[in-house]
Amino acid sequence: MKTPVSLGRTPAPAGKPRRISILGATGSVGASTADVILGRPDAFIVEAVTAGTRARELAETAIRLKARIAVIADPNGYETLKAALAGTGIEAAAGEAAVIEAASRPVELVVAAIVGAAGLAPTIAAIDAGADIALANKECLVCAGAFFLSRAEAAGVHILPVDSEHNAIFQALEAENMPAVESITLTASGGPFRQAPIDAMRRATIAEALNHPRWSMGRKISIDSATMMNKGLEIIEAHFLFGLLSERLHVVVHPQSVVHGWISYADGSILAQLGAADMRIPIGHCLGWPKRYPATTKPFDLVSVGSLTFEKPDLERFPALSLARQALSGGNRATNVLNAANEVAVEAFLAGEIGFLDIAATVAETLDHMAAASGSVSIQSVGAALAIDAEGRRLARGVIDARRRLEAV
Amino acid sequence: MKTPVSLGRTPAPAGKPRRISILGATGSVGASTADVILGRPDAFIVEAVTAGTRARELAETAIRLKARIAVIADPNGYETLKAALAGTGIEAAAGEAAVIEAASRPVELVVAAIVGAAGLAPTIAAIDAGADIALANKECLVCAGAFFLSRAEAAGVHILPVDSEHNAIFQALEAENMPAVESITLTASGGPFRQAPIDAMRRATIAEALNHPRWSMGRKISIDSATMMNKGLEIIEAHFLFGLLSERLHVVVHPQSVVHGWISYADGSILAQLGAADMRIPIGHCLGWPKRYPATTKPFDLVSVGSLTFEKPDLERFPALSLARQALSGGNRATNVLNAANEVAVEAFLAGEIGFLDIAATVAETLDHMAAASGSVSIQSVGAALAIDAEGRRLARGVIDARRRLEAV
Repeated sequence: MKTPVSLGRTPAPAGKPRRISILGATGSVGASTADVILGRPDAFIVEAVTAGTRARELAETAIRLKARIAVIADPNGYETLKAALAGTGIEAAAGEAAVIEAASRPVELVVAAIVGAAGLAPTIAAIDAGADIALANKECLVCAGAFFLSRAEAAGVHILPVDSEHNAIFQALEAENMPAVESITLTASGGPFRQAPIDAMRRATIAEALNHPRWSMGRKISIDSATMMNKGLEIIEAHFLFGLLSERLHVVVHPQSVVHGWISYADGSILAQLGAADMRIPIGHCLGWPKRYPATTKPFDLVSVGSLTFEKPDLERFPALSLARQALSGGNRATNVLNAANEVAVEAFLAGEIGFLDIAATVAETLDHMAAASGSVSIQSVGAALAIDAEGRRLARGVIDARRRLEAV
Repeated sequence: MKTPVSLGRTPAPAGKPRRISILGATGSVGASTADVILGRPDAFIVEAVTAGTRARELAETAIRLKARIAVIADPNGYETLKAALAGTGIEAAAGEAAVIEAASRPVELVVAAIVGAAGLAPTIAAIDAGADIALANKECLVCAGAFFLSRAEAAGVHILPVDSEHNAIFQALEAENMPAVESITLTASGGPFRQAPIDAMRRATIAEALNHPRWSMGRKISIDSATMMNKGLEIIEAHFLFGLLSERLHVVVHPQSVVHGWISYADGSILAQLGAADMRIPIGHCLGWPKRYPATTKPFDLVSVGSLTFEKPDLERFPALSLARQALSGGNRATNVLNAANEVAVEAFLAGEIGFLDIAATVAETLDHMAAASGSVSIQSVGAALAIDAEGRRLARGVIDARRRLEAV
């Protein structure tokens, strides 16, 4: 039950600012990271910031953070970026190779916040360059967890989980007591359909599905929260991060989103992390780890919350949870396909092509198709992971098209 | 903000049984300690067990735990103890000097569970002999905290808190992040009078006051829980254990007694310890620390609890909380007198001499008398602590007698 998350408490050199790069600086996690850094400008030096397509926002972020280089993955954004950085002394670059080059620059910590499979290659590059990784990109684990962690182990770097639930577990984990971990519980808000009848879920509009009760997030992750596939993917991530089998990884619905996760130790104690639903808290924890730095967020008052409730998730209305466990039992290829199929299905839902319940149904059918396909693939490279991702997308697209043809008949 | 609780994570030598003595083996904590030890007979070797007056029970405990020596503080118990141990090979001894001798025997850990000021001298003896202390006796901190901890520091031993609330904090504390501790919160069940009108508390019978909703404990501590003086004393203990001032030590009423305490870190994270209201859990934690051993208690299920609630304590109905903070601001002499006066007042209540609300009133008046007394005393010995304890008892008895005379008029 060895965990790849290194928990050795090596204190950071006092007073010396920590050199950091941010991959995916214009997304939600990137923006919160910038907030944390700007709250302690003397504690960090920003080397590189990267983004996918939003060149103007990237330039603004680079200027605010006094970064050395800003890289836009989309080559079409280069001129905008360069113009916006003119006279600032900040270097501009574009293209995927440039993103990887930026990720490889020598820093102590890389915040890996690129959304999607595009985050895989740059994050591996950062690991190979010897940086600790504050990991927000889920594809690194879901699509290629075993490979990803073997590279981190080879490089001797720490993987620090940014996701609020995994960060909670990371905070509650005692390195010397891994063998005494009975189970890990990730909490789920339950999303907008926690108490919805299944018929209402079947008819759910895009606006209803996007209306998350607690966290303000991007569209894709908001839909994942509504289907609870988000929690399914988090089970997979937790498996790789903490080295526990599916049956020791629990999900509990906790609508107040105050307790983010807990560890049940074999000695009868539960250690939990609680706090506001504010991504700056887990990000700040990763940026300072193993030291905790004062945050600008105000202290959290449990009395003002009044009551915390806990429920079992309804696996019939939220089949995504079982699908994730099913994929996990099939290995990294299956979890990769699960993720790819889910992305395609969520896009199709957001495009009005399929209904809300069809998202999980599409994933289930795609997994069945994959299981039927002959041969087993071991993921030993970024390329192999991306190939399976592409295969999963193709299969899922086929499932959706077949459904639509049937409906059109 | 240095803490006297050492949190250095020095792993125990694997496989080697830990040698332990139990001071106060026949009380509630002693019995739970025996349970923990009997649950892992290969992990511990018991050197000495001691008790105050219950010779027969002490002999039974010594036999079950295969102790080397059993010591009864009351010399009148010697014959009973000796007879009960005849033929077992277990040594028998009696008297306070023999208790201190037993406490001084070389062991790795001493469970200090003697109730009252009588626990002070044997626990200091155990510290001087170089044993880590699993501390359940509150008088060591309340009556002589500064002196007690200076002795522990000089001897280089660890003080491991057994009280469920302080043990919770101990579990949630990161040694390297003491400067980032914003506040510590101890939870309180609220006791039998949590929602009682003040008139009902004024008329409360002994049986009503003893009727604790969650924990099964001795009579004295049950009354302390009803007045919430127990929580007041715990604030004082937490001050000494964790080195925080009164304003950073909070009490929150949490009727379910599931969350035992939490730390609010300056980075916005709260780390909490949860579990069943079962003393075997914190005792087991201390006995194995820094390793967690599997317990015989069944895993705790938060979903089965359903809802956790948190309230501010009512300082008007529970003035003991403010009295404890007042005493804490006056130093160890005042906290010592607070404790002594409370013991005398609880005894008087249990003897039917005074009403329930008179307990806190007696303590308040005694503290006023003490403050009026001239001179300041620095506690630098067990003798000095016991002398102040005696002074506090005398003052409190005087307060009670004066009240009764007034009432008789």
